[in-house]
Amino acid sequence: MRYIVGVMGPAKAKSKDVENARLLGELIARREWVVLTGGRDVGVMDAASRGAKQVPRSLTVGILPSARDRVSKYVDLVIITEMGNARNNVSVMSSHVVVACGLTGSGTVSEVALALKAGKPVVLVGASPAEAKFFKKLGRHLVAAVESPEEAINLIMKRIERSD
Amino acid sequence: MRYIVGVMGPAKAKSKDVENARLLGELIARREWVVLTGGRDVGVMDAASRGAKQVPRSLTVGILPSARDRVSKYVDLVIITEMGNARNNVSVMSSHVVVACGLTGSGTVSEVALALKAGKPVVLVGASPAEAKFFKKLGRHLVAAVESPEEAINLIMKRIERSD
Amino acid sequence: MRYIVGVMGPAKAKSKDVENARLLGELIARREWVVLTGGRDVGVMDAASRGAKQVPRSLTVGILPSARDRVSKYVDLVIITEMGNARNNVSVMSSHVVVACGLTGSGTVSEVALALKAGKPVVLVGASPAEAKFFKKLGRHLVAAVESPEEAINLIMKRIERSD
Amino acid sequence: MRYIVGVMGPAKAKSKDVENARLLGELIARREWVVLTGGRDVGVMDAASRGAKQVPRSLTVGILPSARDRVSKYVDLVIITEMGNARNNVSVMSSHVVVACGLTGSGTVSEVALALKAGKPVVLVGASPAEAKFFKKLGRHLVAAVESPEEAINLIMKRIERSD
Repeated sequence: MRYIVGVMGPAKAKSKDVENARLLGELIARREWVVLTGGRDVGVMDAASRGAKQVPRSLTVGILPSARDRVSKYVDLVIITEMGNARNNVSVMSSHVVVACGLTGSGTVSEVALALKAGKPVVLVGASPAEAKFFKKLGRHLVAAVESPEEAINLIMKRIERSD
Repeated sequence: MRYIVGVMGPAKAKSKDVENARLLGELIARREWVVLTGGRDVGVMDAASRGAKQVPRSLTVGILPSARDRVSKYVDLVIITEMGNARNNVSVMSSHVVVACGLTGSGTVSEVALALKAGKPVVLVGASPAEAKFFKKLGRHLVAAVESPEEAINLIMKRIERSD
Repeated sequence: MRYIVGVMGPAKAKSKDVENARLLGELIARREWVVLTGGRDVGVMDAASRGAKQVPRSLTVGILPSARDRVSKYVDLVIITEMGNARNNVSVMSSHVVVACGLTGSGTVSEVALALKAGKPVVLVGASPAEAKFFKKLGRHLVAAVESPEEAINLIMKRIERSD
Repeated sequence: MRYIVGVMGPAKAKSKDVENARLLGELIARREWVVLTGGRDVGVMDAASRGAKQVPRSLTVGILPSARDRVSKYVDLVIITEMGNARNNVSVMSSHVVVACGLTGSGTVSEVALALKAGKPVVLVGASPAEAKFFKKLGRHLVAAVESPEEAINLIMKRIERSD
């Protein structure tokens, strides 16, 4: 069974969040983990998959809301849930850890909240102090806030080593 | 078609949120609207349904995660989604307006976020200033924050009058 | 908690199945049970709700695939699942018993199969001998085949009496 | 985007269906298509994934009902839907073609019906004449019935060539 890292973030993302997502995708793929996203051809979803596909033999999975959505061309495996935004719960349930790049969208906030509800660890990359505080209060030890993709990867590696 | 008000809030709720939910349920039922909740026999869900059933001819709907959950005895119509926390999306999609009593749980936060994602109006009752600020930034004109159940009902009535 | 009878059948239904559905809706409502359907304004769904609303104080619930669907005007409570045809599982999980009027559509066949998978009793009204044989082999004691709505209601009443 | 073949069939399968599923998995993987199943460690699901993993660089995806289910050790990518049997709709929506090995279970019947509802081609392997007749009447040109895994693969290859 492959280790899956979910990368979540807005469709209409800030350029900083898009760049973080691209680098995250690349770093995740270099460790031979699978990159899972919402699968569409926009924003953080598209960038994370694009970053991963720069790495040979990488694997990207997209959890699509419906068959009507446009799929990122960097997604290898398209899972069509046909369940609208409730697909956000499939995305987080299928991820061993969830990384959020940008909390400006309600879809991403719902994903972080659903991940915490399911007891999944969440790493916020580049969150504002108010956002970090809000989610740390909600999720306690499950939530970490970091500045860069490299820090996020380091955190995930430590977590995997601990659970070995 | 009946007008449906979703009342959301934690299973492990503060006594103030439970009392707000009970009164909300009662006030919603007095206006002959339907009370929709997550359907379980705990916290805000149970209290809102209980409040509604104090009113003759009231109607309460519970959107249950699964057939394994214990149902509130104040729920008239039990909808079993068998989709875990993704049922939160069914709850908000089926509500004309969502009222949140207490934002201390990740389930409730996911419901507010999914409601905003779907363009549904959300009323926060008794939210802290930080919580209100967080969701107003996320949902803009869709989000209102009030102190009491009565204010929530007044807001909903104005909204209905406007859309007539 | 109200007793819920799901009435399933094709959107493009034969006139005999539509008439059976209308009468079923009426007979279910006369017993003060709730009529649950797929909620759209066509075929068996629409007819069952229409039949129920001929009875004062009846209650009809429609489990809609999405907010884009046209709702039957005879549905009191609209549950929007936003999960496409997977809503068929919500329909059967929420029904105490499932009655199928017409097995000419793949949606209805999926509902009967999902009902049997969940261990729900299924009554086929007006099924052909081949259809009845197919589903009796699949669902054994859970499946009954009858000719008329009145027989379906009698079967359901006996079932309720047995389980009292 | 990878081409995905869904292999569906009972958890409690006949030995002939299990052997067909294993060979199907192997033949699908040899063509570098992805094998998608219901992901559990039993019956047709397990056998199809097992067959695929005999082939180097094969990829298997399992669409699990919930995090409580036991996963086949031959599944590379585990998608946890947390939506019970409604996951059957995710399985078929995500498959370019659905192959059914054994129609003795209501879960498999629901998958074939949901696939037809979604307009997906379905190949029945080793179906009885009555089963084949039932589904051909339901799905018309979408349904083919064959005796062996090799014939199923040939049919899929012709379909892909036609659509190129």
